[in-house]
Amino acid sequence: MSEKSIGICLLGCGVVGSGVVKILTEQADMLRRRADLRFDVRHIVVRNIAKHAAGLPGLPFTTDAEVAIDDPRTQIVIELIGGNSAAATLTQRALRLGKPVVTANKSLLAACGNELFALARKHETCIAFEASCGGGIPIIDAICRGLVANRIDAIVGIVNGTCNTILTRMTRNGWSYAQALAEAQRLGFAEADPSLDVSGRDAAQKLAVLASLAFNVQLAEKDISVEGIEKLQPADIQFAKELGYVIKLLAIAERDEQDRLTLRVHPTLVHQDDVLAEVSGGFNAISIYGHALGHVLFYGRGAGQMPTASAVVADLVNVAIGTTPLAFRHLRIFPDTAALADVLPIEKSRSRYFLRVTAKDEPGVMAQVSHALGQQGISLSAILQRETGESQLVPVVITTHLAEDGAVRRALREIDSLPTIVPPTVCLRVVDQPKEFGGNGK
Amino acid sequence: MSEKSIGICLLGCGVVGSGVVKILTEQADMLRRRADLRFDVRHIVVRNIAKHAAGLPGLPFTTDAEVAIDDPRTQIVIELIGGNSAAATLTQRALRLGKPVVTANKSLLAACGNELFALARKHETCIAFEASCGGGIPIIDAICRGLVANRIDAIVGIVNGTCNTILTRMTRNGWSYAQALAEAQRLGFAEADPSLDVSGRDAAQKLAVLASLAFNVQLAEKDISVEGIEKLQPADIQFAKELGYVIKLLAIAERDEQDRLTLRVHPTLVHQDDVLAEVSGGFNAISIYGHALGHVLFYGRGAGQMPTASAVVADLVNVAIGTTPLAFRHLRIFPDTAALADVLPIEKSRSRYFLRVTAKDEPGVMAQVSHALGQQGISLSAILQRETGESQLVPVVITTHLAEDGAVRRALREIDSLPTIVPPTVCLRVVDQPKEFGGNGK
Repeated sequence: MSEKSIGICLLGCGVVGSGVVKILTEQADMLRRRADLRFDVRHIVVRNIAKHAAGLPGLPFTTDAEVAIDDPRTQIVIELIGGNSAAATLTQRALRLGKPVVTANKSLLAACGNELFALARKHETCIAFEASCGGGIPIIDAICRGLVANRIDAIVGIVNGTCNTILTRMTRNGWSYAQALAEAQRLGFAEADPSLDVSGRDAAQKLAVLASLAFNVQLAEKDISVEGIEKLQPADIQFAKELGYVIKLLAIAERDEQDRLTLRVHPTLVHQDDVLAEVSGGFNAISIYGHALGHVLFYGRGAGQMPTASAVVADLVNVAIGTTPLAFRHLRIFPDTAALADVLPIEKSRSRYFLRVTAKDEPGVMAQVSHALGQQGISLSAILQRETGESQLVPVVITTHLAEDGAVRRALREIDSLPTIVPPTVCLRVVDQPKEFGGNGK
Repeated sequence: MSEKSIGICLLGCGVVGSGVVKILTEQADMLRRRADLRFDVRHIVVRNIAKHAAGLPGLPFTTDAEVAIDDPRTQIVIELIGGNSAAATLTQRALRLGKPVVTANKSLLAACGNELFALARKHETCIAFEASCGGGIPIIDAICRGLVANRIDAIVGIVNGTCNTILTRMTRNGWSYAQALAEAQRLGFAEADPSLDVSGRDAAQKLAVLASLAFNVQLAEKDISVEGIEKLQPADIQFAKELGYVIKLLAIAERDEQDRLTLRVHPTLVHQDDVLAEVSGGFNAISIYGHALGHVLFYGRGAGQMPTASAVVADLVNVAIGTTPLAFRHLRIFPDTAALADVLPIEKSRSRYFLRVTAKDEPGVMAQVSHALGQQGISLSAILQRETGESQLVPVVITTHLAEDGAVRRALREIDSLPTIVPPTVCLRVVDQPKEFGGNGK
């Protein structure tokens, strides 16, 4: 069988783009051997040719995206520009020409994935987006095809490497958020403007993509309740540790028996025995619970040049051999073919909670706090109060049993209005994943 | 789009087979919605119809496999008989008719996968075998397609749930191997004749399948050095624990710079901080190291009715929509299209070692043991010797730095011939996976 040549147009040549070029160049033999494919990079669209041409000499750089996309020798377009504006316009242009688009852009998919999927379908082509979530972990393909026999009940994941790196440093080194962020920025693990990551928005965009596929629904970033890591204090990480927990930024999507979804991203206390507690630094891990499969977890590098490029090139191969277009055509799991999600308001979501109350050292405080919780039907699981020495202010840590978010918020308003309490009371969620020991294994 | 009907013939209806029927029946609507497919079970081939018909009334049971396979209404054959004899004959029969075969049979694939793949190719059909390794974890698809852009350097996995269940009980409860096995048998996690599992052979068969795909080579079960868990003693689990390790049965395939493979299955000391140490009971976990992706890990239920059925039904869907046939046709990663593996003899493999010497309580013993190791160029990493009280026999535990297996065996022969030593010295391997902390994260 003689190899097939596939003409590629690369939009953007930053960190990931140059990783893609590196794999296509250095592993050309391997790709030829494995897939009988030769990828020919026809155009690399950048803003400033001079900036790139020095580092990657001899490559077909251009500034004219439209000509590059329209070129009949361009058979697949790789969109690595990021953002929603030019990326959307150029993706649409390629799709209208019936050319498949490979993208790592979760922001684009979260913002207008449904429209783009529908456009691809109209023009009998496809969008491949394995690199949009979980970096090099083949999680999109697993949800779409590997787990297709499962009614999925929940997704629980660490999907933002920047936040995880910051939290890992705070936990291991006892650093403040500001210290850990500065270090992450110095080492290149956080952007100069880290807000998209640390606010939890990046994680929410990824959750939107994953949940829409897992539950076969249309949903938007705004359906997701989001809380970032910016306000986390070392004291809470320390208290969590004393209680046997590690704090992670989790993205969670759960389906209840009425097919209503709870969608949220927030710092979360994860038990130290939970496998997610072990996921450190830039790694991602995504747990999925399927009705037949039970718990399955995918772990790997969630970002970075080569891991992300690994997913982009996998998409290229799968588009080129035709499996991705076929799956896109035949599987009705993409949101453009699905109904709107029935999203439960966050107030109705249930979780365990970690509360850190700052109380004045006076008699009767605990009774008042317990009363406020009890009024809302919230029962306590553990209390941690240390001897205070000289201080007039006593931190009291409380964990609760399962409670409704709305009830907890009402209790907190009550607690924070008590004259014996210094507001604001810190409120974090505790998520216990199902126990796994005992083995179902043969 | 109107749904497509796919006629199925099921060979065998044991635990997994009835799980497949359950998913096809109970999740028919979901499969229709997701894939526009209706699976019609045309025949279920069993030895004893009466035995099955009571539990699953109304299903098309038959004892005539050949008629069932040949029936023009049978479009896909699912082989769940197990073993190598009838399974091979009937698989060949289906393939010769150009009918795709879905199988969970790693033993069959390890024994004659190459011939079956070649036969499928000749008749322009395919074999789908996601359920053969890792139960419901979509590991085959990940290696074949998700990681296709990676030159894979190593696979390190816990792939046998029975062994892992037994080892977990031995570790947590301090039980003997015999006690843990009996309990696993009582609970149905181990067969009445557990030898295929506990000898490590089942793990070796799975490793043969995984490694052949990951490294794109032909290899056989006999290329794999195999050691089971039957001889493990509670003392070694306890000493390992004191040194910070947990003992797991690992299946390991490594590629060196000359593309030579080391292939082995053996009880292994895994550091307690390693994510594999956390994998307990019937769960499996498979780590893969790719040149671009780095470390990626897949974790989930490695066996059991519904997890395995989940993988079988995923294969059914992917065969029916055409993605698996397309990948099988275009990807040259299946062993029938690949060269013979260049397998390094186990004596040449390198590892760290854990040795437990039983020494007579006499002066100079340690000097003799150290000398025997030193003679072979093996350097020590740690020594653990407790005060012995009354006993005349002292267990001394030694861990080594990286050493060649052949050298260790020579040193052991020397040590076990010393008059101050009571043979046999226990010898286990220590495997340290690459450190992961630090975050390469974006």
